Parts: sequence; structure tokens; C-alpha cells
Amino acid sequence: MTQSPKGYRFAVASAGFRKETRNDVALLVSEAPAVTAAVFTLNAFPSAPVQVAKARLAVRPEAQAVLINTGQANACTGDEGIRRCKATLEMAAALTGLSPESVLPGSTGVIGPHLMMDRWEKVMPVLGQALAAAPGTYGLEDFARAIMTTDAFPKFGDAEVELSGGRVRFAIMAKGAGMICPNMATMLCVVLCDVKVAAAVWQPMLQRAIATTFNRVTVDGDTSTNDTVYALANGCSGVEATSAEDLARLEETLTTLLGRTAYMLVQDGEGSSKVAHINVTGAATAADAELVARTVGHSQLVKTAIYGCDANWGRIIAAVGRSGATFNPAEVRLSLCGVEVFRNGCPVDDVDVDSLLLEPFKAHDITVDISMGSGSGAYTLLASDLGHEYVDCNAAYRS
Amino acid sequence: MTQSPKGYRFAVASAGFRKETRNDVALLVSEAPAVTAAVFTLNAFPSAPVQVAKARLAVRPEAQAVLINTGQANACTGDEGIRRCKATLEMAAALTGLSPESVLPGSTGVIGPHLMMDRWEKVMPVLGQALAAAPGTYGLEDFARAIMTTDAFPKFGDAEVELSGGRVRFAIMAKGAGMICPNMATMLCVVLCDVKVAAAVWQPMLQRAIATTFNRVTVDGDTSTNDTVYALANGCSGVEATSAEDLARLEETLTTLLGRTAYMLVQDGEGSSKVAHINVTGAATAADAELVARTVGHSQLVKTAIYGCDANWGRIIAAVGRSGATFNPAEVRLSLCGVEVFRNGCPVDDVDVDSLLLEPFKAHDITVDISMGSGSGAYTLLASDLGHEYVDCNAAYRS
Repeated sequence: MTQSPKGYRFAVASAGFRKETRNDVALLVSEAPAVTAAVFTLNAFPSAPVQVAKARLAVRPEAQAVLINTGQANACTGDEGIRRCKATLEMAAALTGLSPESVLPGSTGVIGPHLMMDRWEKVMPVLGQALAAAPGTYGLEDFARAIMTTDAFPKFGDAEVELSGGRVRFAIMAKGAGMICPNMATMLCVVLCDVKVAAAVWQPMLQRAIATTFNRVTVDGDTSTNDTVYALANGCSGVEATSAEDLARLEETLTTLLGRTAYMLVQDGEGSSKVAHINVTGAATAADAELVARTVGHSQLVKTAIYGCDANWGRIIAAVGRSGATFNPAEVRLSLCGVEVFRNGCPVDDVDVDSLLLEPFKAHDITVDISMGSGSGAYTLLASDLGHEYVDCNAAYRS
Repeated sequence: MTQSPKGYRFAVASAGFRKETRNDVALLVSEAPAVTAAVFTLNAFPSAPVQVAKARLAVRPEAQAVLINTGQANACTGDEGIRRCKATLEMAAALTGLSPESVLPGSTGVIGPHLMMDRWEKVMPVLGQALAAAPGTYGLEDFARAIMTTDAFPKFGDAEVELSGGRVRFAIMAKGAGMICPNMATMLCVVLCDVKVAAAVWQPMLQRAIATTFNRVTVDGDTSTNDTVYALANGCSGVEATSAEDLARLEETLTTLLGRTAYMLVQDGEGSSKVAHINVTGAATAADAELVARTVGHSQLVKTAIYGCDANWGRIIAAVGRSGATFNPAEVRLSLCGVEVFRNGCPVDDVDVDSLLLEPFKAHDITVDISMGSGSGAYTLLASDLGHEYVDCNAAYRS
């Protein structure tokens, strides 16, 4: 583990929103105001915290604290949901001495119910004590654990990069296992950095990094109402990124960090036992390639076959065929775990697919390479499988 | 059970394509050449029998026999697949004294492997004996059973209608439980009628009937490579349908029959325990309404909640929100089993959803009414749920 980015403190506490015994509120505070980029869900029913955060960051792309709860999504809750969200930010502001406008909200959990304000009021002093504890008492992992819903493990990580002016550090904390099909955004995720960087550069950098990472994973094809990624840059390292070279390095590190975290989301896809790496190449356009990758990655029949370690390639070709992409069927080639199984509209004759793939298909990571023709369109998607644990998790999630 | 349409004979036999002990080849023969309408899959990888049948019916919309096998889909099998398909039709022609061109093929089962011609050669004399048996020895149910794959029960039925010239009769036999998301077509289905009708009228009548029945059901969102519906009208009743009134009655009966069969497909959706009736109204366009209905009906999270008897309406609203349809979120209203739970962007305040819906949500048939606004776009979709039996069925289907 590398050192954490400078100037951030963490606190967690248990409000008992759904389970009495776990931490379900998390707060982070930056020593200095941080330039803040953000990307949100494209769902037409954005949650109250998404609406509040969007409005605040539109006025000024800066924040000094992030307050997240799990157990209640505060989504589909109308104007009352907005009022309750703002009330929690005021509580956090009172606790930290910051203005309410400098605290960003995030919620995850069941859609519909209103925030339980009595429990918020009770938990706030506890959260205050945690924040006042000795530095290092609470860290990334505590924060990541406190924002989990159905996640099987906490998702966090860090990275560092040497810029011309010195070293800057990143940390990341994310949650998400279900309702994962980010579209220009994703689950809840907070990226912290101690670089000094201009807002005009930081926001598009985050968007580009997300486009090739979080936006290329799917668990169940369901885009959440609460997806949010915040990226804070507080400048506490004293290192400024302005040159093209420094910015490129910064972006590379950010993208790598997001990519690692995106993989964790699929790895932890609700009840998921495997990750399929679906690589589409040679499509007429990038949009066609994406359409094919998503159709295959969302196919229940493909996902259950992967769960069952069955190299049932016919289901993949059937999904390609119904994807709606434009292509010549005779040019399509399919390889599974490096073994070509289909080309020229036929099975590859000399390949005994079932024997050859029996062992490779038992692996945790499966590669599906689909070559559509000689076009330049390409897309890569990480998809989880679909098994009994998924059904267990989602048929009984609320009860 | 009403009487069967006149002039059709049935035969079934066991070739042992996948299991030694079951019938897996079915043949039906009409006394007279029948005007034949057909609708096929839109999948870009149509099976060999789909390609052969399309080419033959394009020359002349007429047939006198249908030969169907289960266990092997003969899809993704290239030119060799076409050759083998035609060879089976020649065998059937030799058996019946018909020309090979008047026999239509259908295959269902695993995609990829070639037809096992040695078993076809062995089974043909047996099929011939069955066909020569006393009339009534084999009927609709035998045929429907012999074309099943993962179906839990055979799908067949009949109907009759009084036209101005007398009574005509319909019979239907269908298979399908998985890879069900018909798009301008469906699984395998044969409709038999003894009416005398013009081909120019019969084909569009079948297409219209399918548009509001088979094309409005989904099990898993996967459109098969082999979907085929044949409708034969052999004129053996001696009753001709030409007047607008007779044709309207005929179409109504056909549509009702297809609708009943479409419901059976969802009812038997692989591992399905429930059927959701998703009714979308008030959308800006019919296409928007369909987009919403399909997004909700394909949502793994919605399907698992229904399986778990959990009225988790937030998942439905989240699916509406990510559907891509154009609408004003504030106008969306949602009712489950007749209870309104969401309107004006909020939960309906005085409704204790969980208590009120606890019992209704245990029913086999669940209604989901989504009102999108004041537009005229509407769409109804029947969707199956998603549970352990689905995973069992599809993780292990080939092994």
C-alpha cells in the first residue's frame, strides 16, 4: 500500500438504517477546498443526492467534504427527498464547521423510502467523534466498507505518480455489485487526489477515464438512479499539474486506477463467480462494436452458460445475430479463451470445442473475442455471469 | 376439445438425437396442397431450415408437409447444413410420395453441430410406419411433444369459427421455452387450418396476428436463430373465405389462438414460475411504449423481484428511467396488481405497498401498469420471471 493522498480525513458510524450492527454512514473531509469533478447517472429518475450535487457543482466545481449513506437510496422521493438530503448536509456542515454547500451527498440502497431523519440526528454526534479521533484511526477501507450494499467485499485502492513538480497520490473508494450498467457514470465512487489542478482540466479528464473503464462493465444491464463518481483534487501535495506531459501522466494513473476498480465491480457482481472479457473488433463502427459487446454481455443465456462452465458458443453467435449491428455474417469469427470455434458461418471443423475448452472454461476470467470483419470499430466490455447466487441475492434483497 | 381441421395426418418417431427414449422427429402431411404463410427470425444467423424454407416459399407459397426435429438446431452450420437439411426433405418426400419442394423443414436444439444423417436414415422407415398407422393414432399432442426442447409441457390447441359458407377449424402446435424474444417471428410453431383462402390474404393475416401475440412475449430477451411460424390452409373443409366479414372472423380466431399459445410460451419460460403482464400506456409514441415495456420486461432485477414475490417497485421505475424513451418523469404513474404505488415522482403516500401487495404478489399472474403521460403510445408485453430453475436449466442445458 502506498501512502494516502495528503489532507483527507475519514469517519464512519452506524445509524442502523437497515442493519443495526454495521457502519452505514461515511464522511470524508479535506483540509483545503478541492477542485471537484463529477459524473452522474443518465437515468431519467436521478436520486435526490444526484440532483442536489449536480446543482451545487454547476454553481462551483469545488467541495471540501463528502457524506455518503447506505441502506436508503433517497431515490424516487420527490421534493421531500431533496429537503431531507439538504438537511443531512446541514448536519455535516455543523459538525465540520464547513458551509453546507461544500459538502457533497451520496446515497445507495433501496429505492423509494424516505431518509430516516431521526436516525440521522442520532448518528451525527457519533460521526463527529469518529472524525475527531486520531488521524489514521479510520481509512479508505473503513469508508469503503461503510458504503457497501450487497457488495461481497470493500472496493478501494490507491496509486501515485511522479510529476515534474513532485509526487502526487490518489485514493479510490467505490461500492457497487448490483444495478450495474453504468452509462456515462457509475455506482458510488469517490476519487481523492492531492494534486493541484484546474477544474476545466479535471472534469474532462474524469469523463475520459470513465468512458473506457466504468462505462465498459455490466453486471445486470440495469443502470441505477444513484450512480455518482466524485473526484476531488485538494492540492495538498503542493504539486501542480499544468504541462501537457504532467496532465497525461495524471490521466494515465487515474484511468488505471478506475480500470482496476471497474474490474472489482464485475468481480463482485451480485452472486457473480466469473468475469467475461468481451472484445469486439473489426466492426463497421465503434457503435456497432459496442452494440455487439453489450448484447452478448447482457444475454442471460450467455451468462448462465459461462456460470455453468459450458463453452456453448452458439448462444454467443445467436446474440451477435440479434444485436442489430450492421455486419456480414460470413465474416464473423469467434474465439473463446484463445481457441477459434466459429468462422465463415460454420464451426471450425478440426476443433473439438468441448474437450479443448473444458478446462479453460472453468477459469475465473474468460475471454470472448469476436471479430466482425475488417472495419475499425472496437469495444471491450467486462461482464459478470448469472447463477444461483444472483437469484438468491436479488429475489430476497429487501426481505 | 373441438374437432381437428380436416385433411391433416401426423407421425412421430425417435431418432435418438439427444435422448434415446423420446420422440424427436415429427411429420405432418396434408391431403391437399396448402396455401402456406410463414414468418421467420430476424436473427442475422438464420438456421439452415429457415434459409431453405424462405427460399422455397418465395418461389411458391404452398406446402403439403412439415418435417421438424428437435435436439439439433442445424444453425451456424454453413453450406453443409443446407445440404443436410435438403437431404432430410428428400427422405420425407420419398416416404410420402410428395416432391421435396412441398415439404417444409424446422429444427430446434443446440446450435452448431451438424445433423446426424445416419440417425435420420434409420428413423425414416419408423416415421413412415407411424404415418401409415390408422388415422387418429397420432395427433396434435404427439406432434407438440416430439418438437419440445426444454419445454416443461407440450403446447397445442385448437379453435373453430363459423364463416358464411360453413365451419372451419384451426389447430396449433408450438415449442419454445428458452431463447424466447420473438422479433417478427418466434420459436417453432405450426398452425393448421382447413379453410380455403388466397395466399395474398393469408400471409399478411399471419403477420398481423403475430405482431400482437408472439412478438409481445419475452422469456430471456434472446431471439433464436431458428424461429419459424408456418400457417397452412389446405381448403379441405370446402369452405372459402373471401368476403371482408369472413376474413375478419378468420383473423380474429387466428389471433386468439396465437395469443393463447404465446401465453403458454411465457408460462413455460425456462424455469419460469410467474407471468408479468406489462401494460404501458400514455407514451409519446408506440415505439416509446415498447421500449419501456421491453426494458422493464428484460430487467434481471425486476424479474428476480417478481420471482421472489417482492413488490420492489423502485426497480421498475429505475428500468423505466434507463429505457431511453422520451417522457416527462413527473407524469409517470405505476400500479402493481391494481394498486397505484408511484406518481408525481414520489411514492403514493397513503399506500403501505408491502402490506397491500404481499398477497397479490404471490399470484402466478402479476400486472404492471405503467402510465407514461397523456400520449397515445401503448404496448403490452408478457414477461417471465427469473429464478433458480432458470439457472438450473441454462447452466446445464448441454451437459
